[in-house]
Amino acid sequence: MNKKIVVIGGSAAGPKAASRARRLDENAEITIIQKSTDLSMASCGYPYYVGGFFDDRNQLLCSPAGVVRDPKFFFNAKGIIAKVNTEVTAIDRATKSVICVNLSTRERESITYDKLIVATGSTPRLPAVPGANLKGITSLQTMQDADFLRKIRDDKKVKRAVVIGGGLIGIETCEALQLAGIEITVIELLPQLLMFLDIEMAKLVENHVKSKKARVITDNGLIEFIGTNGELTGIKLKSGEEIPCELAVVAIGVTPNINLAREAGLVVGVAGGIAVDSHMQTSDPDIYAVGDCIETVNLVTGTKVFAPYGDLANLQGRVAGENAILDNKASFPGTFQTGICKVFDFSAGSTGLSEKAAKIAGFNVETVINASPDKPGFMNGKLLVTKLVVNKADGKILGAQCVGPGDVSKQIAIWAMALKGKLTVDDMTNADLPYAPPFSLAIDHSIATAHIMQNKLRGFMRGISASEVQQKITAKEPLFILDARGPDEYETMRLGIGEKLIPLGALRKRLGELPTDKNAQIICLCKISLRGYEAACALKALGWTNVRVMEGGIMAWPFAREK
Amino acid sequence: MNKKIVVIGGSAAGPKAASRARRLDENAEITIIQKSTDLSMASCGYPYYVGGFFDDRNQLLCSPAGVVRDPKFFFNAKGIIAKVNTEVTAIDRATKSVICVNLSTRERESITYDKLIVATGSTPRLPAVPGANLKGITSLQTMQDADFLRKIRDDKKVKRAVVIGGGLIGIETCEALQLAGIEITVIELLPQLLMFLDIEMAKLVENHVKSKKARVITDNGLIEFIGTNGELTGIKLKSGEEIPCELAVVAIGVTPNINLAREAGLVVGVAGGIAVDSHMQTSDPDIYAVGDCIETVNLVTGTKVFAPYGDLANLQGRVAGENAILDNKASFPGTFQTGICKVFDFSAGSTGLSEKAAKIAGFNVETVINASPDKPGFMNGKLLVTKLVVNKADGKILGAQCVGPGDVSKQIAIWAMALKGKLTVDDMTNADLPYAPPFSLAIDHSIATAHIMQNKLRGFMRGISASEVQQKITAKEPLFILDARGPDEYETMRLGIGEKLIPLGALRKRLGELPTDKNAQIICLCKISLRGYEAACALKALGWTNVRVMEGGIMAWPFAREK
Repeated sequence: MNKKIVVIGGSAAGPKAASRARRLDENAEITIIQKSTDLSMASCGYPYYVGGFFDDRNQLLCSPAGVVRDPKFFFNAKGIIAKVNTEVTAIDRATKSVICVNLSTRERESITYDKLIVATGSTPRLPAVPGANLKGITSLQTMQDADFLRKIRDDKKVKRAVVIGGGLIGIETCEALQLAGIEITVIELLPQLLMFLDIEMAKLVENHVKSKKARVITDNGLIEFIGTNGELTGIKLKSGEEIPCELAVVAIGVTPNINLAREAGLVVGVAGGIAVDSHMQTSDPDIYAVGDCIETVNLVTGTKVFAPYGDLANLQGRVAGENAILDNKASFPGTFQTGICKVFDFSAGSTGLSEKAAKIAGFNVETVINASPDKPGFMNGKLLVTKLVVNKADGKILGAQCVGPGDVSKQIAIWAMALKGKLTVDDMTNADLPYAPPFSLAIDHSIATAHIMQNKLRGFMRGISASEVQQKITAKEPLFILDARGPDEYETMRLGIGEKLIPLGALRKRLGELPTDKNAQIICLCKISLRGYEAACALKALGWTNVRVMEGGIMAWPFAREK
Repeated sequence: MNKKIVVIGGSAAGPKAASRARRLDENAEITIIQKSTDLSMASCGYPYYVGGFFDDRNQLLCSPAGVVRDPKFFFNAKGIIAKVNTEVTAIDRATKSVICVNLSTRERESITYDKLIVATGSTPRLPAVPGANLKGITSLQTMQDADFLRKIRDDKKVKRAVVIGGGLIGIETCEALQLAGIEITVIELLPQLLMFLDIEMAKLVENHVKSKKARVITDNGLIEFIGTNGELTGIKLKSGEEIPCELAVVAIGVTPNINLAREAGLVVGVAGGIAVDSHMQTSDPDIYAVGDCIETVNLVTGTKVFAPYGDLANLQGRVAGENAILDNKASFPGTFQTGICKVFDFSAGSTGLSEKAAKIAGFNVETVINASPDKPGFMNGKLLVTKLVVNKADGKILGAQCVGPGDVSKQIAIWAMALKGKLTVDDMTNADLPYAPPFSLAIDHSIATAHIMQNKLRGFMRGISASEVQQKITAKEPLFILDARGPDEYETMRLGIGEKLIPLGALRKRLGELPTDKNAQIICLCKISLRGYEAACALKALGWTNVRVMEGGIMAWPFAREK
C-alpha cells in the first residue's frame, strides 16, 4: 500500500515537506490542502514587490525556472495533489482523516492519511481599538495584501500612511511605502523599533529611518482608527495626538494558527504554538507540525519560543517531510532566532540573545560595541556597528547584533555560525575568514569585535556605552571626556557634550591638561574609539585610575550631536 | 627597568605586534626596524590601486583617520620608534641584540632587546629563465612595484602584458591590467588557475577571465624573457609559442625571508618557514616570529604549512605582541588557509581542504557541487557554485570552495566558521542564518549545499561531476542524458552533448522514451540539477538502477556548450 501523506498548508513549510516526502518516496500519495488560491508564495518578498524593487507579481509565485507553482505544476513536476481554495475544518485522529471544504463550491471531503503534516501558519494580530474595520487598514501577510498595497503604490493617490508596529515587517513596509512617495509615520508602542536589538542599537536604526524623512513615534500606542464614511482618515494615539492618513498597515506581530490542532487534541506548548519534538512530531506520532504554527527551542536558553521565520519553516518542512516517510531519522534542533532586515541603506540583524534577553534568561553578561568599516576605505568600506554579548564567566558567545550601511548579513552569518559551533570569544579572536580588500579588512570586523571583547574580559579595557555616558551627563556627574581625534575631524563632526580635544599624537605631551585628580572619571573616545582605547591605555599606565573607553565612539553615538 | 621590544619588519605583522605590545605596556621601549621607507602598507590593496579602483596612493599608507603611518605617526600616536630604510643584518642571540644598518647613511647600530619579534616577510619568487633582468619585468610585492605598475596604467603606453602565474596575485594583477586597457595573457605552468580550487571550479573562473578578453594559457611554462636593447619585447613558452609584450608581471609565489633567523640559529621548519609554536615563539624563547616568514599549522590536517596571508599576519602579530609583554598568554592555533580573490565580476574563495588536498592528506572524501543563486531572482540573485568536501565516514566538513558572481565572501565565511566549530554536514543542514530576500534565499546556498551532501551521504542521491560526464562522453560510453528543463530554456541554452529533453513535468508520462534496459547509465540534469534530482528520484523509484545527477547542472558545466 502506498503511504498517504496529507499536508495542511501550502505556503512555505507545507510545500517543502511535501516535496521532500516525494523525493524520498515516489509512490506515496501526497496531498497539500491550501486555504488560499496561491501556493508557495515568497511572502517575505511582499515588501519588495510593494516597494517596487520588481514589478512582476509572478516572481513571488514562480519556481526559479520561471514556472508558476500552481496545482498543475505540483501535479506534473512533483506528482503532488494540491487542493487550493480549500479549508481543512477538522482533523479526525480516530479515523486518521481530515475534513475539508472547497471554499468556492462548498463541497466537503474527507481525506485519510497515514502521516499528517500541519503547516497552518499564522495570522496577523490586529489592534483591539475602535475603527478597526474602516477601509484603508490592512496587514501585509497575504498575496492579496501585497496586491492591495502595490496598487496603492501604482495609483499614487494615497499621500499619508501609518505603519502600526516597528518590528521587521513594519520597518520593511515603512521603506516600501516611503519609496512609493507616501508620507509615512511608524508607530511603536514600545520605546524602540526592532525589539531583537538592544535599545542603543535600535536608536541607530531609528536615526537612519528618520534621515529618510519617515517619522518614527516610539513609546506611544494606537488607541483609535478615525474615519469618515467608512474610510480611514487618521489615527489617534495614546498621547492624544491625531495623525491624518488614508492608509494604515498593521504589523504588530502574528499569532500561530493552532485552532485545528487544539480542537484535534494536540498539545499546545507554553509559547503558544503547537508543541513538537526535534523530529517535528506532535503529541500524536502520526502528526507532524511545522512553520509559523509551532513553537521551537531557543538554542541558547533552551526555552521554548515562537519563531515565525520563513527560513526555519523551510528547514522544519524538510525534516517533517523526511520523517513522515522515514520514521524520524531527521531532526530540527531549534533556533538562534537569527534575523535580518533591510532598512533603507542600512541593514539590521541579530542572532542569539540581546543583552536584554540574556539578562532576562539569567546570564551574567559582558557586552561590547564595535563600530568600524566592513572593508578598507579605499574599497569604499561602509560602517558596521556590532554589539556582542557573551557569558562573562567563560566568554561563551551568547548573541550578536549588527546595524549599519555595511555588510551586516555576513557579520550576522559569522556570529550565527559561532553560536552553532558553541564558540567562545577566544576562539573568535583567531577566526580564519576570507580576506581580500574587496571583501573585508585584514582583521575582519567580527574578529576585531572579539578582540575588543577579549580586552574587556581580561581587564585591559574598561568600556562604557554611549547610553551610560549620556546618563552621566544628564546626572551632571563630573566627567573629563577626551576626544582623541585630530582637529580637522573635530571641526567636521563632534558630539558637543563637553569633550576636550587632545589628539592621540599629542596626548603624551599634553598630560597637564588632564585632571590632576588621578581618580577623576575620564571617558576616552574617537571616531570609533580605537584611538580612544590607545589613549585610555596610556592614561591608565600613567596613573589615572578611572579611565573608560566609550564603545563604538562617535559612530555608535545614538543621540543628537553638536555637528 | 622598562622592557625592550624590538620588531624586525614594519609592513603588517610587525606594526601590529608593536602596537599590541604598546597597548599592554605603556612603558616598554618598542622599536620597529623596517627595510623599506614605507610602514604599514596595505599591500593587499596594490592590485586595486594599479587597477584604478582608487587614485590616492596615500590611502595604502594611511590610518583609517587619514594619517600616513610614518615614523612620526608611530612615535606620536603610539610611542613607538620606527626606523625605516634600515636593514637588520644580524641577530646576536648571545648579547640579545640586533645589528642594523641605515640604508641611506650606511650607519650601523646595535639595538638590544628583551624580546625580539621577527617579521621579515617574504620575497617574490622569480623564474630562473634567461632574460630575467630585462626592463619591463616586475612583481607586485612592494609599494614601488605598485607605483611602477600604476604609472604604466596612467601612461597608457604599454599595450601588451603577460602575467606569469595564475594564483591569487596573478589573477588580481590580470584584472588590474585589463582594466587599464592592456591586452593581457596569463601564463600558468600547471593545468589550472588558482590552485586552492579543484580543477573543475578553477575552469569556471578561467572561463570568466577569458570572457573578459584576457587570454589564459595553462599547462605551459615560461622558458625565456625576450628583449631588445635591454627592454622586454616578449616571452617564450615551453610550447615554443612566443608572446610579444612590453610588460611582464611575475606572480609565481613568494618564499619566506628566513636568512636572518637561520643565521641566528633559529629552527626552520619542514614547510620552509621559521618554526614557531602556538605562542609564535621560535626555538629561542626570547624571539617570536610572525607573518610571511614563518610556517603555521593547517588546522584540518595538522601539518605544517606556509600560509603567507595578510590577515593571518595581523592575527599572529597581535599574539606575539601580547606574548612579548605578558609571557605567552595568547595563542594562534593555525589556519584553515581561507582565501578569496576578486576576479572581474566573479569572486573565488576557499577554506579548508580542496578534494585534491584532502585526498593527498589521506581522507576518504565525499564531495558535492551546488550551483544556485545567492538571493531570490526578484532581488537580483546571482549565481554561486560551491564545492563542498567532507569526510565520508562521519560527514565532518573538510573544506569548501565557492566561485561565481554571487556573494562568495559570505559563503566562505560561513564554511570557515563551520570548520572552526568542527561541524558536520548534519549540523549544517539546520544552520540558522540571517534570512530576508535582500540577503539570501529562504534556504541559504550554504545550507542547500549541506542538504545535497546529506542526500549523497545517505544514498538518496547519486551524483556525478561534469568532468566525469565529459570523460564518459569522450570515452564514448553509452549514456542516456536527460535534461529535465522546459523547452524554452533548452532553446536558449543547452550543452549539446547528446542530451534528451524531457521536462520534469512531462517525465512521468513519457517514460517510454527512457532506455528499456533498466541498468542503462542515465545522467539527469537541469539548469542547476534540482529538477534533475527530482527526475532521478522518480526514475530510481520506477526501477532504473543506474541513475545519476550531474552536480551543479548546466551552470557548473566548465566545458564548451552548444549554446
